[in-house]
Amino acid sequence: MISAAATLAEIRARKPLVHNITNYVVMNETANATLALGGLPVMAHAAEEVEEMTRIASALVLNIGTLASHWIESMLLAGGAATAKQIPVVLDPVGAGATEYRTLTARRILDIVDVTVLRGNAGEVSTLIGAHAEVRGVESIVAGLDPAELARTAARRLGVITSVTGPVDHVSDGDRVLSVANGHELLATVTGTGCMSTALTGCFLAVKPDEPLEAAAEALAALGVAAEDAAATAGGPGTFHALLYDALYALDPAKLDARTRIEEL
Amino acid sequence: MISAAATLAEIRARKPLVHNITNYVVMNETANATLALGGLPVMAHAAEEVEEMTRIASALVLNIGTLASHWIESMLLAGGAATAKQIPVVLDPVGAGATEYRTLTARRILDIVDVTVLRGNAGEVSTLIGAHAEVRGVESIVAGLDPAELARTAARRLGVITSVTGPVDHVSDGDRVLSVANGHELLATVTGTGCMSTALTGCFLAVKPDEPLEAAAEALAALGVAAEDAAATAGGPGTFHALLYDALYALDPAKLDARTRIEEL
Amino acid sequence: MISAAATLAEIRARKPLVHNITNYVVMNETANATLALGGLPVMAHAAEEVEEMTRIASALVLNIGTLASHWIESMLLAGGAATAKQIPVVLDPVGAGATEYRTLTARRILDIVDVTVLRGNAGEVSTLIGAHAEVRGVESIVAGLDPAELARTAARRLGVITSVTGPVDHVSDGDRVLSVANGHELLATVTGTGCMSTALTGCFLAVKPDEPLEAAAEALAALGVAAEDAAATAGGPGTFHALLYDALYALDPAKLDARTRIEEL
Repeated sequence: MISAAATLAEIRARKPLVHNITNYVVMNETANATLALGGLPVMAHAAEEVEEMTRIASALVLNIGTLASHWIESMLLAGGAATAKQIPVVLDPVGAGATEYRTLTARRILDIVDVTVLRGNAGEVSTLIGAHAEVRGVESIVAGLDPAELARTAARRLGVITSVTGPVDHVSDGDRVLSVANGHELLATVTGTGCMSTALTGCFLAVKPDEPLEAAAEALAALGVAAEDAAATAGGPGTFHALLYDALYALDPAKLDARTRIEEL
Repeated sequence: MISAAATLAEIRARKPLVHNITNYVVMNETANATLALGGLPVMAHAAEEVEEMTRIASALVLNIGTLASHWIESMLLAGGAATAKQIPVVLDPVGAGATEYRTLTARRILDIVDVTVLRGNAGEVSTLIGAHAEVRGVESIVAGLDPAELARTAARRLGVITSVTGPVDHVSDGDRVLSVANGHELLATVTGTGCMSTALTGCFLAVKPDEPLEAAAEALAALGVAAEDAAATAGGPGTFHALLYDALYALDPAKLDARTRIEEL
Repeated sequence: MISAAATLAEIRARKPLVHNITNYVVMNETANATLALGGLPVMAHAAEEVEEMTRIASALVLNIGTLASHWIESMLLAGGAATAKQIPVVLDPVGAGATEYRTLTARRILDIVDVTVLRGNAGEVSTLIGAHAEVRGVESIVAGLDPAELARTAARRLGVITSVTGPVDHVSDGDRVLSVANGHELLATVTGTGCMSTALTGCFLAVKPDEPLEAAAEALAALGVAAEDAAATAGGPGTFHALLYDALYALDPAKLDARTRIEEL
């Protein structure tokens, strides 16, 4: 059942610990988004401790935004611990398509780790299934496929729920496709809002692991509604960024479902 | 003598350089808090330069929030330089108790470095003296001891001034205990505010190295007063975070001591 | 020809990809400043990918604020790729003079990489030409030379355009000197605003590579005007920081040239 409100209430009640191995650029931002929503973030990347940290967490978020070889090894170790404990894993293939190193690393993680949800933009996801895409740095410029079709195709080929974010988001398990029409264009003016959506996907999955398709769509809808609220009084990217945490914190489960625009295609 | 106002005025006058070897998540935030207060932060972690950097600093802050083996070696090198120069060292054992790696690293630093003040939450500090605690990631959930007793016991056992932060903070040298009742619950909704309190403890110690118990309590009181001011107009965690720097910058020595709530128990 | 407005319009139209290998403290801030201005930032530091990333970029920004040996190797690799592709390179020698490691690293990069613009404070730049300076951490306290003379002398000796920022900025190619009198004192209360000026210099150079002296001055003027706008309603460093991104985003090419205070000395 789709209800961002019910899942949010559950996050607030349980405060799930979400282990993030993520990039340097957005560590503070994803931690703060997780806290503002109601989850409990922890960042740890040393090979010596990632398995132990994952074992006390309710979800694992892997983000390849600023890679280095020892970080990849830690992601694989943590991924193994997540699989052993059967907790959800979210992968954000930041910049896949921009360099071969990122593309190959994302594929390697998908091969080795039991990823639950892949969350990327159209260019990154297209790259991972070998479809045409134009990626500039960490931005997707052109993707050849319709995003709903892309989400469905990627989910089938890669065997993971695929969450393709953009002006309208699409999440698919390879069969069903949910679209999410919440959000605001100011999200694209702040770095790391895609990474935030990945981190929040981890929070939603943490408390709704048995319905990952629904949880992934709900996470995007919740962030989108918060962005709409923040944009209402923002004067630009900087104040929007600060207000986004206020809005996530203020999300009201009693009113949230009336505002989310999730549709099954 | 306890006077956050006098010490703050001294910080503003001398602008002490504080060397931080801290975690990726909060580097920007602790640097900005230090600057807003009136200190001069510098972040450097390479083994090639940490001793030289510590030698020009007035205090050293070590924070284990995102560990890796070469960072630990640099912390030990910098700690040695601080001891040689006889400048104060503050240790923040972020996440001790959550993984064995963090617990052992915090203990190793306490063993090898001449730490002046240990600043942590109740769970972290309890872990370091082998007392019962429940730590989830970097949050302390349950600690077995009364916080004043915990601060005193830890200070005795570990031989360092211990600063235990929480709804009310407690700082002890093993004999005396100072409580600090400033602060605001919004502090818990922003990541790294504990790390900020550690960084500001470094600033206060830098100019008041001969009264470290008082300096540690004053630092917490100053941050707490700033948090009260920021919360007065904040709309949630994001605006509170921005306003916290404004409030630190606006702290007025002429009015500060009337607002701090430091008591000797 | 000097026109920050024309160059800004070009940045907005072309959205140049700027590859940053920068320090941990300011990664988020420099990425957000680049985005707010209209450029496209990408952060990547792994030796495995930096050359490939630089090859798709329009400018490269190297910043030594939090050094480590493998980062230096990556900077040199990326610098080589930038030279091969003939795109502009900006170097920020953060903390040169504070430790020998930083001074030697900045000199090594200047020796090996075809740097287009060196952007630093008076202390850092003085250090690099062996002139008297007092550097505390990453702050320049005293420099022996008049800043205009310093910029000109450094440009001649080092063979790169030199951009010395301070209350008034000076940019020189060794012959001509441009002064930039925009800005606000609140810039000095937020960490990383110097690094932001370096990143924005990269954006301006990316679209105006044939007039690097002018581009470097225009970048400082644009940031300075944005700082003036942000300061107009800021309540202190925290709100100023958020408003600075709003102001960069709101910079209007139609009005910008009337506000920039760039003069040829």
